[in-house]
Amino acid sequence: MTHTELKPGKLKLSTIVAGAWRMADWNWNPQDRLHWIEQCIERGVTSFDHADIYGNYSVEGLFGEALALNPELRNQMQLVSKCGIKLISDRRPEHRIKSYDHSKKHIIWSVENSLRELRTDRLDLLLLHRPSPLMQADEVAEAFSELQQQGKVLAFGVSNFTPHQFDLLNSRFELVTNQIELSPLHLDPLHDGTLDQLQKERVAPMVWSPLAQGRIFTDSGERSVRVRLTLERLANEHGVSVATLVYAWILKHPSRPLPITGSQRMQVINEAVQALNVQLSEQDWFEVWQASQGHEVP
Amino acid sequence: MTHTELKPGKLKLSTIVAGAWRMADWNWNPQDRLHWIEQCIERGVTSFDHADIYGNYSVEGLFGEALALNPELRNQMQLVSKCGIKLISDRRPEHRIKSYDHSKKHIIWSVENSLRELRTDRLDLLLLHRPSPLMQADEVAEAFSELQQQGKVLAFGVSNFTPHQFDLLNSRFELVTNQIELSPLHLDPLHDGTLDQLQKERVAPMVWSPLAQGRIFTDSGERSVRVRLTLERLANEHGVSVATLVYAWILKHPSRPLPITGSQRMQVINEAVQALNVQLSEQDWFEVWQASQGHEVP
Amino acid sequence: MTHTELKPGKLKLSTIVAGAWRMADWNWNPQDRLHWIEQCIERGVTSFDHADIYGNYSVEGLFGEALALNPELRNQMQLVSKCGIKLISDRRPEHRIKSYDHSKKHIIWSVENSLRELRTDRLDLLLLHRPSPLMQADEVAEAFSELQQQGKVLAFGVSNFTPHQFDLLNSRFELVTNQIELSPLHLDPLHDGTLDQLQKERVAPMVWSPLAQGRIFTDSGERSVRVRLTLERLANEHGVSVATLVYAWILKHPSRPLPITGSQRMQVINEAVQALNVQLSEQDWFEVWQASQGHEVP
Repeated sequence: MTHTELKPGKLKLSTIVAGAWRMADWNWNPQDRLHWIEQCIERGVTSFDHADIYGNYSVEGLFGEALALNPELRNQMQLVSKCGIKLISDRRPEHRIKSYDHSKKHIIWSVENSLRELRTDRLDLLLLHRPSPLMQADEVAEAFSELQQQGKVLAFGVSNFTPHQFDLLNSRFELVTNQIELSPLHLDPLHDGTLDQLQKERVAPMVWSPLAQGRIFTDSGERSVRVRLTLERLANEHGVSVATLVYAWILKHPSRPLPITGSQRMQVINEAVQALNVQLSEQDWFEVWQASQGHEVP
Repeated sequence: MTHTELKPGKLKLSTIVAGAWRMADWNWNPQDRLHWIEQCIERGVTSFDHADIYGNYSVEGLFGEALALNPELRNQMQLVSKCGIKLISDRRPEHRIKSYDHSKKHIIWSVENSLRELRTDRLDLLLLHRPSPLMQADEVAEAFSELQQQGKVLAFGVSNFTPHQFDLLNSRFELVTNQIELSPLHLDPLHDGTLDQLQKERVAPMVWSPLAQGRIFTDSGERSVRVRLTLERLANEHGVSVATLVYAWILKHPSRPLPITGSQRMQVINEAVQALNVQLSEQDWFEVWQASQGHEVP
Repeated sequence: MTHTELKPGKLKLSTIVAGAWRMADWNWNPQDRLHWIEQCIERGVTSFDHADIYGNYSVEGLFGEALALNPELRNQMQLVSKCGIKLISDRRPEHRIKSYDHSKKHIIWSVENSLRELRTDRLDLLLLHRPSPLMQADEVAEAFSELQQQGKVLAFGVSNFTPHQFDLLNSRFELVTNQIELSPLHLDPLHDGTLDQLQKERVAPMVWSPLAQGRIFTDSGERSVRVRLTLERLANEHGVSVATLVYAWILKHPSRPLPITGSQRMQVINEAVQALNVQLSEQDWFEVWQASQGHEVP
């Protein structure tokens, strides 16, 4: 399958990334989880997206437990995790409010914890999960440098950062991605400068919720219905599923996005992979844009 | 008449630009059109603003037909055109939706078509008509480079781009203008960073709809009436027409704007040219701003 | 007391700055004013914030009159003033509308007037009071250079500038601060790029209205009450006053803000100074943010 360099000469991930976000909800045993990982890799989906907080701080551990059943898989995959959000949780009793912590101390502590949970010696990529108004860019850069020198993390990025926030941290430490929300029901990054900036910097975005958490298929609002009808028509024309059409729509953006698919069902992951072989025309792409906006381009 | 360098050392246009936007609506014969062109040039309005799509893809041809009656005029004028919008049109039956196309193939095809229609061997300036979320900046730069090396287009710019979009393309190819809407009824570029960025880059904006498509004179909304009364009072004080006052108001901006006047009547073009000799004070300028905003400056 | 370098290697001000904004309202005699100045300096609050227009163009003169009673104090203080706003005022009969003037002529005239009024030979820092859509950045830079070469002003900044406006002027002349509004009731600069940009440029903001013009204590709106209850709880936990807590909240921002306190009462200035010894946790800081926003962080 296709891989994408996040930035020229830097880390490559599989263009379709498997999201482990909901793994705790699947209620699987370690062997089931291993099987899911292996099936992803067989399809070329070799990059796995995590965060310390997924599944109330449990998903990294569930994944690591499975990986321990076949540790050789580690060299066939890329592991992405995130840090910086502190959830109120029975597993973190010292948190009395949901907050952010981008201190060097917390970043390093969180990475070391992720490595233990994932049962690995390195992350391929670490992201700051959310922009914090309290971010000390120099201190973050110091934490990133130390983790990189120790070989604990190979590359660094951010998630949900505005252009100004990306500029700030990128001025202190080279970022290789910004993981953002983008879908036919969430067009903001097309227009608010986020994707313009990333293309300028030749940084590929990772994309979360490309199917808008399933609202693409289920939402009954006027806009969603309009988008769904357009997607169904185009999918039919291209002889693919609606999900495949949506992934192809995202992949057409010139910033070279890497969509994340978070499903337990291999069928959904297949549909994402199939999008790599779909060629949408400009007019196809703008039909979806127009259906979402409710008006033609100016 | 005054000319303005779009960027230091780059293309000069006449500070007042003649817009051919509505030429198809004038229902003139070729000799009438030639006469209009000659009269503009006599007044020092030597730059003509076009787009492939004006008049349902017909205006460039109408202008070219007139120019063919006196081909020597070509060397006394500067020709600006635009590309990148695809209209639904009987003349473009392959378009099933209004969309943008900034592919290299379309840009080159569109320029070659503009040259044929305008009956010339070169454009002085080509603009991308609208920002496209699908713009591949590297591919656009490749198209621009090729057209420039072949002598088909001398300089390049954009239209209606936000600062982020301008930054992106300008990082790949030197842009010499951003053609934007600005008028006493449309102040956005004064406050949203557009004109700040252009001044920073020493790039002069071209300005479309300086008279707000005539709403300056005709609109009966509260804001428009307030603006009109202020303009009338100031015009009276300066002994000029309201239109001249509006052009002078635009010309006072430090970004060195080039307003476009799109009228078939030479009287209106004269009124624009006369603005070059009007000196508004800072207080005059802010009176119009205050009338438009409905409150004094903070 | 702590001092803060506005930019590495550049002008230092006291981290807590005394604002003379309302001095005319205090109805003090020169000896009272001198006493206030001396008490500030004794507390380490050695920097004084002025503007030409404060007190209807009178405050600089009132301060200068007091300073003349003990001219040696000048070398123990830093004087900040501003220019660029033209108020309608009986002291400026030629102003017929509130407007901005950033011309070289007005900037130099205004500084020379400020020096006369303050009875000093130099300003430590001059700020453009508001961004003007008519700002000629090159002309402002010329004015600043001339004033700097003549020793009349040591360093330059702006106030209330957006990132685009700051970028523009900073590209022509090195700015050392942007004086902005920030308080638990005014969070915009945390999220609109203003503080991201300043941190990136290593430029420290000065902060006006840290107590939201007293609304922190008095406003009965739902949001204000929610913020006040949170501040009171945290103030109690830290054993300080609410005002001290607010100053500590502002000082925790990584951009290294310098809050301005504009009170005639030494007790209030003490409360600001005490904030330099308060250490808020990240969670404390986000409790105030959450109370102000009305929801937890995303």
